[in-house]
Amino acid sequence: MRSMARYRLYYWPGIQGRGEFVRLALEEGNADYDDVARGPGGMRAMMRFLDGRAQGLRPFAPPFLAHGKLVMAQTANILAWLAPRLSLVPRDEASRLAANQHQLTIADLATEAHDAHHPIAVSLYYEEQKREAQRRSRHFVAERIPKFLRYFESLLGRGGPWLLGARRSYPDLSLFQLVEGLRYAFPRSMARLRTPRLRAMHDRVAALPRIAAYLASPRRLPFNEHDLFRRYPELDAPLPRSGRLPA
Amino acid sequence: MRSMARYRLYYWPGIQGRGEFVRLALEEGNADYDDVARGPGGMRAMMRFLDGRAQGLRPFAPPFLAHGKLVMAQTANILAWLAPRLSLVPRDEASRLAANQHQLTIADLATEAHDAHHPIAVSLYYEEQKREAQRRSRHFVAERIPKFLRYFESLLGRGGPWLLGARRSYPDLSLFQLVEGLRYAFPRSMARLRTPRLRAMHDRVAALPRIAAYLASPRRLPFNEHDLFRRYPELDAPLPRSGRLPA
Repeated sequence: MRSMARYRLYYWPGIQGRGEFVRLALEEGNADYDDVARGPGGMRAMMRFLDGRAQGLRPFAPPFLAHGKLVMAQTANILAWLAPRLSLVPRDEASRLAANQHQLTIADLATEAHDAHHPIAVSLYYEEQKREAQRRSRHFVAERIPKFLRYFESLLGRGGPWLLGARRSYPDLSLFQLVEGLRYAFPRSMARLRTPRLRAMHDRVAALPRIAAYLASPRRLPFNEHDLFRRYPELDAPLPRSGRLPA
Repeated sequence: MRSMARYRLYYWPGIQGRGEFVRLALEEGNADYDDVARGPGGMRAMMRFLDGRAQGLRPFAPPFLAHGKLVMAQTANILAWLAPRLSLVPRDEASRLAANQHQLTIADLATEAHDAHHPIAVSLYYEEQKREAQRRSRHFVAERIPKFLRYFESLLGRGGPWLLGARRSYPDLSLFQLVEGLRYAFPRSMARLRTPRLRAMHDRVAALPRIAAYLASPRRLPFNEHDLFRRYPELDAPLPRSGRLPA
């Protein structure tokens, strides 16, 4: 059955993953959308695109978005196209560039968060690369999370209360999701990090009426250990008091 | 000394890295640009941006590009902005979206190529993560390179001879660079991969007069083992004839 919704999002059912950055934008933008792969026959429809049997540019991986005959993939690409249509970014060039830049930096940390539990291969189970994951995660929580989140904290100190200044835009939603995911996966490490402006921004996103309604709805999937952000307590080992990582 | 060039690129001197994707676009677009950090005082100028002491949006990392008072970071973001100004992408929306999508997919494989030699932490030397790098690389050359490059091969089979059809655009330049880098780092594995359309596209890029002139010039830095793509023969281990990876 062909969906009648204006926007059709294709993403793996059962996880938030990278699709969640797009979902949050669609929800905050009050968009008429269908989360195709979560509906009947949706996985088959998604696979037709990935196999190159559907019309439109073949995506390498989900998420991808269809609108009329247009099909686009890559999270940041989808969001840069979608945001002006949903009033989630100011019209001027400098704001568009800044928003896309922030989104790509957020995506970089999300990829590193994934690789913290999968440092060797996506084709292997976590249990098959657990030792390497522990080693990578020690560096991830001690070096990478603080470096990225303090960078965003410094940006929020330049104006705020949102990343682009006076009004919320789509990278705020994505940064909220990044913080949510990192808190889920690395609760002890995140509790030690002092980024008050980022915390306040996170809370402001959670309180946006449409986002709050979405988070409370069954459309918001719970975090789980098949997802981008995974809670494995053995990976959440904060830096020792000495400040030095063991060899 | 303030550069008088129209575009000012900031990137680590001494490596091609992610800056090279921007350099190739600037060269093919015949742009008036300055590769700031390679000139006198350039590293100090670059660090002022990274420390947040310069005017304009603070970048998280190089490369970034300045044009007048505008400062933008993230390779794909820079290229999406630059390309229409240098006639490196068609004007229509579908082409712009496709180009940005391709660029982001190319960037994903470039990041994986980096992590093949640095699977644990960027703060450690290769020698400190060599064992994990060998394990990751076996999967990278056997699973990831073929998956990505066969995807691009299939896109080139849909029209061609370029990614967007009849005319070269900036993701063609980036895909050329990706293939160059992978051939440098993984010569044995790349020699085994049959992607004739991609090889032809690569050769067409190398033969573009401005690109050929650039590649022959001292502006083109040689590949080296401080760079994104590194030649460590122990990481270039093709899949055994059985087709199965050792545990």
